[in-house]
Amino acid sequence: MKAELVSVGTELLLGEIVDTNAAYMSQRLAEIGVDVHFRHTVGDNLDRITATLELALSRSDAILICGGLGPTQDDLTREGVAEVTGRPLTIVPEAEQHLREFFARRGLTPTENNLKQASAPEGARLLDNTCGTAPGLFVQHDGKLIFAVPGPPTEMREMMQREVLPILCEHLGGDLRPVFTRVLRMADIGESTLVAEIDDLISGQTDPTIAPYAKPGEVTLRLATKAAREDEARRRLDAMEAELRERVGRYIYGVNDETMEVAVGIALRERGATIAVAESCTGGLVASRITDVSGSSDYMLGGVVAYANEIKQRVLGVPAEVLAEHGAVSEETALAMAVGVRDLMGADYGLATTGIAGPTGGTEEKPVGTVFVAIADAEGTICRGQIWPGTREQFKMRVSQNALNMLRKRVLGIEVS
Amino acid sequence: MKAELVSVGTELLLGEIVDTNAAYMSQRLAEIGVDVHFRHTVGDNLDRITATLELALSRSDAILICGGLGPTQDDLTREGVAEVTGRPLTIVPEAEQHLREFFARRGLTPTENNLKQASAPEGARLLDNTCGTAPGLFVQHDGKLIFAVPGPPTEMREMMQREVLPILCEHLGGDLRPVFTRVLRMADIGESTLVAEIDDLISGQTDPTIAPYAKPGEVTLRLATKAAREDEARRRLDAMEAELRERVGRYIYGVNDETMEVAVGIALRERGATIAVAESCTGGLVASRITDVSGSSDYMLGGVVAYANEIKQRVLGVPAEVLAEHGAVSEETALAMAVGVRDLMGADYGLATTGIAGPTGGTEEKPVGTVFVAIADAEGTICRGQIWPGTREQFKMRVSQNALNMLRKRVLGIEVS
Repeated sequence: MKAELVSVGTELLLGEIVDTNAAYMSQRLAEIGVDVHFRHTVGDNLDRITATLELALSRSDAILICGGLGPTQDDLTREGVAEVTGRPLTIVPEAEQHLREFFARRGLTPTENNLKQASAPEGARLLDNTCGTAPGLFVQHDGKLIFAVPGPPTEMREMMQREVLPILCEHLGGDLRPVFTRVLRMADIGESTLVAEIDDLISGQTDPTIAPYAKPGEVTLRLATKAAREDEARRRLDAMEAELRERVGRYIYGVNDETMEVAVGIALRERGATIAVAESCTGGLVASRITDVSGSSDYMLGGVVAYANEIKQRVLGVPAEVLAEHGAVSEETALAMAVGVRDLMGADYGLATTGIAGPTGGTEEKPVGTVFVAIADAEGTICRGQIWPGTREQFKMRVSQNALNMLRKRVLGIEVS
Repeated sequence: MKAELVSVGTELLLGEIVDTNAAYMSQRLAEIGVDVHFRHTVGDNLDRITATLELALSRSDAILICGGLGPTQDDLTREGVAEVTGRPLTIVPEAEQHLREFFARRGLTPTENNLKQASAPEGARLLDNTCGTAPGLFVQHDGKLIFAVPGPPTEMREMMQREVLPILCEHLGGDLRPVFTRVLRMADIGESTLVAEIDDLISGQTDPTIAPYAKPGEVTLRLATKAAREDEARRRLDAMEAELRERVGRYIYGVNDETMEVAVGIALRERGATIAVAESCTGGLVASRITDVSGSSDYMLGGVVAYANEIKQRVLGVPAEVLAEHGAVSEETALAMAVGVRDLMGADYGLATTGIAGPTGGTEEKPVGTVFVAIADAEGTICRGQIWPGTREQFKMRVSQNALNMLRKRVLGIEVS
């Protein structure tokens, strides 16, 4: 089955918002084996919506429209579907009643505009919206399937999951060949180096396919294969993962949703160990990422954000001489912070960051981007210095990723390079 | 001038990555007054790329293609442009030399595939890529302008800024009517309430236009107007802002890039005051956001992430009886944390959060989403309790936004509701 996606909204064309809905819908469709060959974005303009829908109807089996179902005059998706299918819009009595009840509960009466949301092209089925007022649409027309879902992400996702995907799966029947994927997450390696090492596999168009993707502090490899049955897919994914692990396994730290903060949690839990964090340049980001994981209170005792030097001294016990002699951004200070926070909180591991996030504050000797990350534990201490390019935001993300990875390796007994 | 954007890449159609490039390019084009009526996404398939380019050429003055300029067999943008313009691809000697030098510096020889990046449709101008190996393309064909820029965001942005936008502005000449925008950022109000209060302005299609947009913890209003001259635009934006401030000004906390963390910094700087943060449920996010602002070390002393109760007691001095009697998630604990961190760090303001981020840990009395935020200063203390719905991530973001806003108001002497 070939599908085409149409995102409706002038705010998208103006670049005011990033179209995360389109990526979400594409992913869900890929998972059930629906091929998306084209995606379009069109503004709140009836002629252009209609032209886009006509084009899509001429070459695809299914069209999914997102957005333009609201109550204002700008919301024209219903009109567009009515136009291309030649089915006039009429009020759906149950939808009108539902809407009136919704407003009545708030002591309000729906306006003429609001009631537009209860209208649909003749023969269309309304799709329940459990998170908002705009129902979705489903029309079967000339053997094609047309869906319209609301633009707010929570409403769209819920409606995709509960209504659209089940209808599509039913129509796919025996052709249902979902795509099964696995994401391998890597650290300590850049995208270009990784791609060079496994270029034969990536450009060999193997099954599973392999797609690399880079974000600050991390590269991922996404393996994907189409199969009628899950065990068949799993066998292929397992084989490819094994081959990749043989060649670049030392860089792989997690699989699928196992982000670095999750991997750190798994490592700490395995060893029954606790962690405390002392942060200067990351300003709380390392602690925040650790506590993004549900259940992290089992191993996370807490942290100190020591932005001012006096706090490094007074709360973490970094000696005044160390700060005076080596400066706040130094191996010596990082080590004293790690030891200090470990002692203060009585944790098994103390993790510390100190650096220059920029854009100001750099010197010739210690340019913007300089950072020291230190760990203290029962075995002793380690510290690594690095220089990261990038914006303040990228710097904080890269340093936090690198610090968490150092911690993960230390906890697991892997040598920190 | 009407433009059409084409994003090329199967990874986009599979939803593996979100197309932030398209939003960026749209924004830049809107700013110089180029109308984008359609945007398309197409996979790494020559027929479909060609069909999309043909359609775009038939109705728009300019086409901007992003992606598909890499060295692999999957990269087909050059071939697509060659096809629709009927201009065969040939190697550009300077580009080949540039590429050979790039590889030689790394001790490598370019492969046949790599050399593809030095080819271009006849008569095309190559656009320098100062951040990567793939040059961009600019072709004038039958009075239309065709641009191709690389997919990696930094390379695309740099090339848009340095090459594409200047060429477009030159072609716009007297038609250059940039869009000037202003974003008003609001807190303490939801999108639907706000829209209801100023519905006449939004649906009145005024100039400047007003577009509301909601994210966790914040609603923004984007004002936009097209004008030949900046002072003309500024006058219109000022007038609309004044009208909005009269009606909903009490919710506006910042303008344009003045995020909540920036607004907090401005308020603290104005008063010459310092801040220290004690966090339980936000786990470091409040401190991390405060320190996202360059120069925040002037007013941010530091923070304590007190995840374990023992840390609340030992480091922040929350009395054991308070924890035993009222629990860690209580007004009493929040107040003791705020006072404790203020004393510990010697700050003018102490800000504290304690709550249940979920998804586990809720009780009947204190469900998931319960939070208490407290502030201590020379005047005394205040505390507010709330319940926020949403995921763990949304909860942390909303609580941090709300805590920072409470702090901002307290510092500015605005009553905290």
